[in-house]
Amino acid sequence: MKTRDRILLCSLTLFNGRGEPNVTTLDVSTELDISPGNLYYHFKGKNEIIAELYEQFEAAMLELQVQSLESDSALLDMWTYLQFSFEIMAQYLYFYRDVSNLLGRYPLIRKRFNRLLGRQRKSLEVLSQALLLEGVLQAEQNDIASLVEHMTMAMTFWLNYQRVQAPDMEHFDPDLAQCAYQVMALLMPYLDVAAREELRLIADSYL
Amino acid sequence: MKTRDRILLCSLTLFNGRGEPNVTTLDVSTELDISPGNLYYHFKGKNEIIAELYEQFEAAMLELQVQSLESDSALLDMWTYLQFSFEIMAQYLYFYRDVSNLLGRYPLIRKRFNRLLGRQRKSLEVLSQALLLEGVLQAEQNDIASLVEHMTMAMTFWLNYQRVQAPDMEHFDPDLAQCAYQVMALLMPYLDVAAREELRLIADSYL
Repeated sequence: MKTRDRILLCSLTLFNGRGEPNVTTLDVSTELDISPGNLYYHFKGKNEIIAELYEQFEAAMLELQVQSLESDSALLDMWTYLQFSFEIMAQYLYFYRDVSNLLGRYPLIRKRFNRLLGRQRKSLEVLSQALLLEGVLQAEQNDIASLVEHMTMAMTFWLNYQRVQAPDMEHFDPDLAQCAYQVMALLMPYLDVAAREELRLIADSYL
Repeated sequence: MKTRDRILLCSLTLFNGRGEPNVTTLDVSTELDISPGNLYYHFKGKNEIIAELYEQFEAAMLELQVQSLESDSALLDMWTYLQFSFEIMAQYLYFYRDVSNLLGRYPLIRKRFNRLLGRQRKSLEVLSQALLLEGVLQAEQNDIASLVEHMTMAMTFWLNYQRVQAPDMEHFDPDLAQCAYQVMALLMPYLDVAAREELRLIADSYL
């Protein structure tokens, strides 16, 4: 593994574990047992590491965005979309742990993250409209707008919501299926009986 | 105003504006134009300031918790509860900005905050059951449990959700009525036509 990649991986691990605001580049070089000069040769500061990790995170998230259905069940597609999304979000947990703080210090990332939120909204919108077309979801268009907004919000903060209630925050082990389920639970009141049952079955096989 | 109170108020202002992890006690004494020694005489470190501010915040929040209805409309009571809650949460914005980070560093506050979350859940439960009794809300008991969980989560993170999308995060000016409305919007699919209309009217007069 190249030094540059080792620095990125080590930073990610320390950020996720301790929180990005509590980790310095010196912590990273100490952990890797390399000189600060060697780290500096690859990254001119923490901001360059942050930028690179955000690139990776964003690329992985953008790949998941939904333009059209993959399976013959929009409910299943939504479940898959949410599960994979939370997997990536948990991999880059540091970002969500301190999202408000991080975005305050990195305006460029703030812009990009807001674009990503827009893409997530769009994916959830595509999936919700598909549920409507399939006739399993009964809602007015403005209900769907509100639903998509709440789902986007829940996607962004459910990991944090779990974390602040975890018995051991330091070694927080997120329950990703639970996160995905909680986002989908927002659909429940709009689903017909069969779809509610289908959602419960999907959930049961993962939770 | 006593020096001790000036220190608390100044800390709160700086924490809210810059984020608590980015503010030192030296920043506070500089801002107040007092010596670090003078500050130290009142508070032995940032943790003592944090503890005192949390006491104030918690006391204000606990006073709002609902045991029974105040008005003859549970919908209006819920709106009042949420509006006042968000007012206090915005006053202590620093806490919600960095909630995950803060709780990681202050285990005692983590315990107390989780107790507060429990009290908020209980208040939302009381209000939801009142809506059910009034016959304006149609839901099974497990729908209500899920609803209360989502409302608690939205209460905790909607300010942050607004903030990460704000054009100017540094001088973020939260829209509290919007926050309260978004939490209540989770009720929408369970309300009867008249109650949906009532909620829209309440919202219109504030939004």
